[in-house]
Amino acid sequence: MSDNLPPRVGGGFASQVQALILKEDGVDLLNQNLLPHGVEYLRIRTAAEMAEAIQVMHVRGAPAIGIAAAYGVVLSARTFLAQADSASLTVEALQQQLRNDIALLGATRPTAVNLAWALKEMEKTLTAACAAKASPAKILDQLTERAVGIHQEDIRSCQQIGDYGAEIVPKGATILTHCNAGALATGGYGTALGVVRSAFARDPGIQVYADETRPRFQGARLTTWELCEDGIPVTLIADNMAAVLMQAGKIDVVIVGADRIAANGDTANKIGTYNVALIAHAHQVPFYIAAPLSTIDMSLPTGQGIPIEERTAEEVSTIHEKSICAPGARFFNPAFDVTPARYIHGIITEKGIVRPDFNENLQALFLENR
Amino acid sequence: MSDNLPPRVGGGFASQVQALILKEDGVDLLNQNLLPHGVEYLRIRTAAEMAEAIQVMHVRGAPAIGIAAAYGVVLSARTFLAQADSASLTVEALQQQLRNDIALLGATRPTAVNLAWALKEMEKTLTAACAAKASPAKILDQLTERAVGIHQEDIRSCQQIGDYGAEIVPKGATILTHCNAGALATGGYGTALGVVRSAFARDPGIQVYADETRPRFQGARLTTWELCEDGIPVTLIADNMAAVLMQAGKIDVVIVGADRIAANGDTANKIGTYNVALIAHAHQVPFYIAAPLSTIDMSLPTGQGIPIEERTAEEVSTIHEKSICAPGARFFNPAFDVTPARYIHGIITEKGIVRPDFNENLQALFLENR
Repeated sequence: MSDNLPPRVGGGFASQVQALILKEDGVDLLNQNLLPHGVEYLRIRTAAEMAEAIQVMHVRGAPAIGIAAAYGVVLSARTFLAQADSASLTVEALQQQLRNDIALLGATRPTAVNLAWALKEMEKTLTAACAAKASPAKILDQLTERAVGIHQEDIRSCQQIGDYGAEIVPKGATILTHCNAGALATGGYGTALGVVRSAFARDPGIQVYADETRPRFQGARLTTWELCEDGIPVTLIADNMAAVLMQAGKIDVVIVGADRIAANGDTANKIGTYNVALIAHAHQVPFYIAAPLSTIDMSLPTGQGIPIEERTAEEVSTIHEKSICAPGARFFNPAFDVTPARYIHGIITEKGIVRPDFNENLQALFLENR
Repeated sequence: MSDNLPPRVGGGFASQVQALILKEDGVDLLNQNLLPHGVEYLRIRTAAEMAEAIQVMHVRGAPAIGIAAAYGVVLSARTFLAQADSASLTVEALQQQLRNDIALLGATRPTAVNLAWALKEMEKTLTAACAAKASPAKILDQLTERAVGIHQEDIRSCQQIGDYGAEIVPKGATILTHCNAGALATGGYGTALGVVRSAFARDPGIQVYADETRPRFQGARLTTWELCEDGIPVTLIADNMAAVLMQAGKIDVVIVGADRIAANGDTANKIGTYNVALIAHAHQVPFYIAAPLSTIDMSLPTGQGIPIEERTAEEVSTIHEKSICAPGARFFNPAFDVTPARYIHGIITEKGIVRPDFNENLQALFLENR
């Protein structure tokens, strides 16, 4: 169970980077808060530990936190079976614990819809197993199978996203990306960086510029690390340098991930994504979103309904445990922004590239893939 | 000589913050690399020490480095007079030393034109004094008078910029600024923050959002500090948060400083200014430059001719002496960008607000103020 990598669907590139590994006695999470200074896996043994790890962002990235939450449900069932004596080992008690832990995991972060999506998948599996009068042990098996399935499907989806996306990357292109939508943010291949990997497999002449992505530096810490691990050339810039690069004609395409996409194509992603979209628009540089269908929330007509997480002032005020500003300053720290659909050239999914009109074309995509 | 503050021209606000103070035995520079963690004045005694202080940015900001360079020339003359024995105390030898030190000071930073402008003013004074057969001691007096004059004129100009600029600040406005164009960047009142000070003196209901301004955090370190010193409300944001604020209608006007303005209005300012200008444009938020005439370089027809300083990789890769990225990453670190004139609503100068067409109106302004 420790090797979650399915056979590669398309041709191409296999990443060396794995953020989550299901083990016999827990889940190994690559501690992303330590990167790039240390590669350390945290052994997560309970759903509560997983909820904590998601909240403090040891694991982050919309698809990865979906997978992490699904594994958290597996841990919940495992701990129940390990701790319960034979008298308390009832399906009802297991269900109760699982529902509590699903609620706990679901409350960790509000913006990425993959978290809610993955927990709903786990809940469906639980409901079906209970309806079929499965034993607690059998319920655990089925939950495990579904969680591993979510993980493997994510890797396959990312590989397909990569292969579809590679089509829009010009030969020798320089790609700008924001935050980390890579192997670290997903099951192990990446969405935006999945496109980079697939494009690089075809054309080693491409290169990446990575926005450092304040305030948490996911671009600096994670994107440069995972691209260097895979030998893909990457140049780090401060977020402030995107416009001057595009003005000089040095960026051919922008590709970023997503935390939630509304039915009209409005896209929530890491704070600063909307800045980059506006800057790309002003320079006629194509701006693409790369995300699996599990990131698309057809229940929301527009991006206005997407809840935006606000995080602590310390993320803005303090770096490496040292303040960067006057004690009297106030702070504002939204973790995401919403890029209106009109600035998006296409949404690269595992089922192909969706183009505007997104309202119509996302609807059609979901009808085809029901 | 330690109090360079002239009487206030308009009504209004006196800042507590002074970046440069001429003393009998040197120039005291507020060490801006230490802010906001410590308020420490460095005693600068020679032109070479001043050149070093400008280069490592103990003093920064276009008008302030102009003043610093002028004082550097004074220090050059002082050290010459102190060291020379009566035999070597010739006007020719003094001239030689001054010309060497002017070249040294002029080579410290390429983008801000105020540096070149102030050194040219000092050179004019030197040439005039020599033509009038002044003694070395007299030359020192005249250079000192001119340097103090440059400093005092800058404070007056900033106060006038503030008073003109306050006219365009709506009642209760929220002003976004980038980098630090404050008392710290000038003789002691500020350009963009001069407008903030004058506006606040009229209307204590205004507030400021400060872009932190990567990579050197001048907004976080300096702007929050000097506004807090003066009791003006300031909220710190990561540069990535400007677009989401404007999307929410929370910014009424953007005001920034300048390092060099071409004859057509194209404006070089701290890296990321162009990002903010594009974002403001997309949200129809007025975007203003505040700068004295000494920042305008009528010899350059457009911004394309402005030399852009590239600084070291460490400014991007390292914070508080710790790396933020993978060792294999490359870097790009332009210190400035050029905002095309078409994104600028007006240039607030000590002679009034210049509006488009800048080509025509800047020309007219310089003809009027010759």
